[in-house]
Amino acid sequence: MTLPIVARNYREQSPLVFCLTNTVVTNFTANVLLASGAAPAMTDLPGEAGPFAAAASAMLVNLGTPTTEQLRAMEEAVESASAAGTPWVLDPVAVGALPVRTEFAQRIVARRPTLIRGNASEIMALAGWESSGRGVDSLDVIDAQRTVLVHTNGIGLTRITGGGCALGAVCAGMLAVHEDPFEAAVAAHGYYGLAAEKALAASSGPGSFAVAFLDSLAAVEPAALESLNCEETTHA
Amino acid sequence: MTLPIVARNYREQSPLVFCLTNTVVTNFTANVLLASGAAPAMTDLPGEAGPFAAAASAMLVNLGTPTTEQLRAMEEAVESASAAGTPWVLDPVAVGALPVRTEFAQRIVARRPTLIRGNASEIMALAGWESSGRGVDSLDVIDAQRTVLVHTNGIGLTRITGGGCALGAVCAGMLAVHEDPFEAAVAAHGYYGLAAEKALAASSGPGSFAVAFLDSLAAVEPAALESLNCEETTHA
Amino acid sequence: MTLPIVARNYREQSPLVFCLTNTVVTNFTANVLLASGAAPAMTDLPGEAGPFAAAASAMLVNLGTPTTEQLRAMEEAVESASAAGTPWVLDPVAVGALPVRTEFAQRIVARRPTLIRGNASEIMALAGWESSGRGVDSLDVIDAQRTVLVHTNGIGLTRITGGGCALGAVCAGMLAVHEDPFEAAVAAHGYYGLAAEKALAASSGPGSFAVAFLDSLAAVEPAALESLNCEETTHA
Repeated sequence: MTLPIVARNYREQSPLVFCLTNTVVTNFTANVLLASGAAPAMTDLPGEAGPFAAAASAMLVNLGTPTTEQLRAMEEAVESASAAGTPWVLDPVAVGALPVRTEFAQRIVARRPTLIRGNASEIMALAGWESSGRGVDSLDVIDAQRTVLVHTNGIGLTRITGGGCALGAVCAGMLAVHEDPFEAAVAAHGYYGLAAEKALAASSGPGSFAVAFLDSLAAVEPAALESLNCEETTHA
Repeated sequence: MTLPIVARNYREQSPLVFCLTNTVVTNFTANVLLASGAAPAMTDLPGEAGPFAAAASAMLVNLGTPTTEQLRAMEEAVESASAAGTPWVLDPVAVGALPVRTEFAQRIVARRPTLIRGNASEIMALAGWESSGRGVDSLDVIDAQRTVLVHTNGIGLTRITGGGCALGAVCAGMLAVHEDPFEAAVAAHGYYGLAAEKALAASSGPGSFAVAFLDSLAAVEPAALESLNCEETTHA
Repeated sequence: MTLPIVARNYREQSPLVFCLTNTVVTNFTANVLLASGAAPAMTDLPGEAGPFAAAASAMLVNLGTPTTEQLRAMEEAVESASAAGTPWVLDPVAVGALPVRTEFAQRIVARRPTLIRGNASEIMALAGWESSGRGVDSLDVIDAQRTVLVHTNGIGLTRITGGGCALGAVCAGMLAVHEDPFEAAVAAHGYYGLAAEKALAASSGPGSFAVAFLDSLAAVEPAALESLNCEETTHA
């Protein structure tokens, strides 16, 4: 695989990632993007979200804490990104559990996001299947033909808020610098997981983990993705 | 008192705490809940806040930075929590000092929150008394019959933002796992204060204090609440 | 210059800085103000922003992530601050790049903010000149007659989010305690830069830099501004 190349391109090109995301994780997401080498930008205003979605390298739409106005901005942004060819990631936070975002997500998923990043119950709800459960999944990357399990120790990420949400932003950045969305997603998950592993070893609780994680994102070398332990299975 | 039992129940049951709170402290509040062992969740959208208030283990309504839409969501959430029996905490931030929230707080307090967490001037304003002053109180817990002073060194919490706001969320979580609201509130304040004390010893300024505080919340053992220095006085 | 005196007044008077700012940096901004010795306060609600702008020691208007309602609150706040004589800082984030805020900024700049803190492209856009570029400027302070280059190593601030935004809040605080806005701005930049320099030496990446920066803001002595290396040039 070409994972180290994807990560190197990300660092060198510093993609501008436009994030429409939730208020709990805006700061952490911006810092994750900066630490990993990308450039974050946020606006949730109709009239600005559209033009910006066309200008940005990639986009994240995260449904964590929508407002009526943000939903309008997201709709405008998705339409604009589709027209301009800007790759975008949908993170369907709590879809299936909360009504307004579920209806909204089912509508914008028809615009075909380049990637969906979420946990199993959310993605099942998006697909219209019954599901239940809260919690965070392991670092799996799935498409219609195959599943890749990225074997890194990401347990620290489940003990802080925003671990999954900020991963969605890094995925968006990787999509901006690599043509194959599946490989870009695997690179994002692998890079993220390696940094989490390194941070866990350097920390003594969730507070120091979050700090060490940002330090590690900046320190991980693209070449480290060569030795990433990935397990690929092809679907029947 | 049964403080260690309350703290143990909190850790074991990991209550789902629905927070309608201010934009300054959303991230810190979520991390405080996670570090202490609870599960945070946020949405400020009318149409979602009502159903979620009924489903959550407990709820926090913090008036720090309201928007018109968030106030509507809060109203819906309070009504739903009351109907469903979900315990909830009101944090009347800056009530008495700013007009819109003062009027709002005086209205929803009629819905009888399980607990009010605030400083003296805010609570006096809620009660319709004259008051003044800004600043953070010591860790006192009060009801109609008694006052408990929790003797821990919480000074570090006054040097970062969100110390009091996130305490409101932990109070909500304790309410979810213990029937007596007064004991639950004392447990929350005691647990929080012990973690703050531990963090102060491990830090060298407000930045490292906030980090160490999250680490300490995860590290404090419920049994540590046995030796908590509480001073109870009964009102005349 | 009187820089150490300005910094000492800031610490002693603990100005109440009312921030209308973006959702990415609210928490960091509040912690920067607290660590440096000021008192932060936020509300973005029409009906509250006006009275608060009159009561606060100083105000920051940062256009990072406006909502329709926040723009109305800003307008009300600017009008009230002007009437009451409250000094205020305008941070025209992404003005020139995004349409709604550009039109808004050009309108409220007519109200004559005490200070504008931004990068060159934003300030050129405000002035109606053509500009381009993203990125953060060095720590320059400029008025119609002179430019002061503050020679400190602020590179760490470019690797985290909110470095510039929170500097705007500290500038506001300095304006509250010193009559000459130009000297107040130089004091803010110098104090901020010294803390950033100290933090860089104590950190090993962007995560630990942000933590060390807050610690350093609390630790820097006002007297340290005496030996600040400033280079002043007078305009032709």
